Amino acid sequence: MVSIAVMGHGVVGSGVVEILLTHKQKLFSRLGEEIYVKKVLDLREFPDSPIADRFTKNFDEIINDLEIRVVVEVMGGLNPSYDYVKRCLKAGKSVVTSNKELVAAHGAELLEIARQENVNFLFEASVGGGIPIIRPMNQCLVANNVDEIAGILNGTTNFILTKMIEDGMQFEDALKLAQDLGFAERNPAADIEGHDACRKICILASLAFGKHVYPDAVHTEGITNITLEDVKFAEKFNCVIKLIGRVKRLPDGKIDIITAPMLVPEKSQLANIDYEFNGIMVRGDCTGDVVFYGKGAGKLPTASAVCADIVDSCMHLKRRRFLYWTDGDGSNIIDVNDSVFKMYLRVNGENAAQKAEEIFGKITAIQDVKRCAILTDAMTLSEFREKCDKLAAQGVEILSTIRIGEL
Amino acid sequence: MVSIAVMGHGVVGSGVVEILLTHKQKLFSRLGEEIYVKKVLDLREFPDSPIADRFTKNFDEIINDLEIRVVVEVMGGLNPSYDYVKRCLKAGKSVVTSNKELVAAHGAELLEIARQENVNFLFEASVGGGIPIIRPMNQCLVANNVDEIAGILNGTTNFILTKMIEDGMQFEDALKLAQDLGFAERNPAADIEGHDACRKICILASLAFGKHVYPDAVHTEGITNITLEDVKFAEKFNCVIKLIGRVKRLPDGKIDIITAPMLVPEKSQLANIDYEFNGIMVRGDCTGDVVFYGKGAGKLPTASAVCADIVDSCMHLKRRRFLYWTDGDGSNIIDVNDSVFKMYLRVNGENAAQKAEEIFGKITAIQDVKRCAILTDAMTLSEFREKCDKLAAQGVEILSTIRIGEL
Repeated sequence: MVSIAVMGHGVVGSGVVEILLTHKQKLFSRLGEEIYVKKVLDLREFPDSPIADRFTKNFDEIINDLEIRVVVEVMGGLNPSYDYVKRCLKAGKSVVTSNKELVAAHGAELLEIARQENVNFLFEASVGGGIPIIRPMNQCLVANNVDEIAGILNGTTNFILTKMIEDGMQFEDALKLAQDLGFAERNPAADIEGHDACRKICILASLAFGKHVYPDAVHTEGITNITLEDVKFAEKFNCVIKLIGRVKRLPDGKIDIITAPMLVPEKSQLANIDYEFNGIMVRGDCTGDVVFYGKGAGKLPTASAVCADIVDSCMHLKRRRFLYWTDGDGSNIIDVNDSVFKMYLRVNGENAAQKAEEIFGKITAIQDVKRCAILTDAMTLSEFREKCDKLAAQGVEILSTIRIGEL
Repeated sequence: MVSIAVMGHGVVGSGVVEILLTHKQKLFSRLGEEIYVKKVLDLREFPDSPIADRFTKNFDEIINDLEIRVVVEVMGGLNPSYDYVKRCLKAGKSVVTSNKELVAAHGAELLEIARQENVNFLFEASVGGGIPIIRPMNQCLVANNVDEIAGILNGTTNFILTKMIEDGMQFEDALKLAQDLGFAERNPAADIEGHDACRKICILASLAFGKHVYPDAVHTEGITNITLEDVKFAEKFNCVIKLIGRVKRLPDGKIDIITAPMLVPEKSQLANIDYEFNGIMVRGDCTGDVVFYGKGAGKLPTASAVCADIVDSCMHLKRRRFLYWTDGDGSNIIDVNDSVFKMYLRVNGENAAQKAEEIFGKITAIQDVKRCAILTDAMTLSEFREKCDKLAAQGVEILSTIRIGEL
């Protein structure tokens, strides 16, 4: 029997307890011993839980219990998660978490403590919910150099964008629908402003390239400025607008990382990933493109990924799984101004396409009654901005600009 | 240093040696020790290989070398692979293989020997080439009951079908092109008759449901009877024709397994998997649908999956990875005649649609100048055949029948 504790009994935490109970036999036959949930930490009361007697409000009952070998952190947020996880690792307990904010903010430090203490710190559920991605990337792609990762990493924004694309809904209406359906939080800022997707691409980049990438170092744009007009022009260019987290290894070894909405060509594997689903493309030098698709969030999908990590931790109590990266100071990340993309812009003004062609060189333009949408060749962001300034100086109003993601 | 041997220096084998040499540093940093290819078994000479001095034509030099702890079997076929692999396992060596024919024919026996000898028998590359699928299914989905697996598991047939769909090529022309491009063998029977896809769905079914499924027990149809006319009617029904390997768990615990071409609705994630790519959908009771996509064959993709298994074996020399199923006698597989599908049929005859409606009940029909294409409701294969006989008795010629895969 391996005793574990679960910290947090919200959506994911209650799902973890549910799976451990309903899939008990399956887990036992795999592990060869029982996984026993000895404690559940939550400030609330859950008198109806089948294990109501094992709830505690006191973290000390977990940290001081030598029988508890694995602690599951599914509280979310940084406080008190960060402190609790650190103390658990230092006490020689393996930790499993679904908390992307925690991993993105403190992953390197926590992995280093785990290394020193010879325990595991696992976080499969922190990216892609129920989609296996951390483990396949870490293990199956061990014989690959990763050249690029690009993903639709946030189900809330993907649901909103899909509703705009498929049903012509306005952003605000689609957001409200997502909230009503439970796909978006009451305070949706972390999702719609891109921070959640940014944390996830940071975790994948840290894993793929071996140095921690902090979210602060990553240029992040959300989808709040995406209009139906952009969605419709994108369609005319055979593209869909998706919020993409992307990291690319450059020839000099540095990385180009960004979270931003992009026009994705319809033939891309990521273009067909709709509604609350997530999809992640990993381009290896040997495998070529591999894409993982599934539900990126939700109670049972996320909890099942947590449970896989629990089993892995229980199987490797005295042996670390190789999952590690060192701290990073951002020096391996190029400035967003040097990042190269083809660009889409929507403008308003007389002879806009002609003026744009004079400034941008070769373009593809679609002229609507009032507006003009333009695709440019690839250039750095700083070059693009300079040219936009020139275009504006000629009396052309620039209504929106979006990167083209050739994924 | 861990010494290994590679049996076979064909496409995959030479790729394995290449990756082990070119990615030496990366593999070393992961494993903490060097992977040393001590012997390569092949009857041919490779004087230009950087490790030409380590080639041997004599299997005894591998089986008798106590330093060789891991043996890679990439010869293909059953003879002498089966004998060699069995002897290696019995000699206490872990074995890594990409040989789906071997795993499909003898997996249960070889896994049992590996269990007895406390060594590993790993075969990530046997399904999906470079796509991580065996390991994610085995590990990440440990907390899931698998309800269904459906996949495009053969790149050759998918390339041919894609060329028929996209470019309106005839089957024979598309096959010839695939051969010219190296996607199809000179003798393409194993691919186009569905046997290769069948072996792969057998391996996945064995893994998911714990009992060996032998290819002989699985109803298998290839794509040789698919005509351009079917492809075009499918398009009118918003479907594409794909060769699908599918296994489904039934409420009574038995499984329904088949390899056959199917009409796949365009909105399905599998419908967009084109050309030589493979895609596998795994439906878990907790995760929902998870899809894995990538190159299902080719030198480096397959070799990189083999290398991931080599690393895993080297890391677990004294400890088995949990990968196991017991032998099966087919009693858990339902008869293909009891298998339930909606059906497509293409017919020729006066008032064909009307006659079909009288026999099949509710149908959807498209009448062309000369032909009629019909979609029926779901029914067992035996019921469908009976009704087809009735239709034929009314003077309607049945030109083709294809299952509908609602995946």
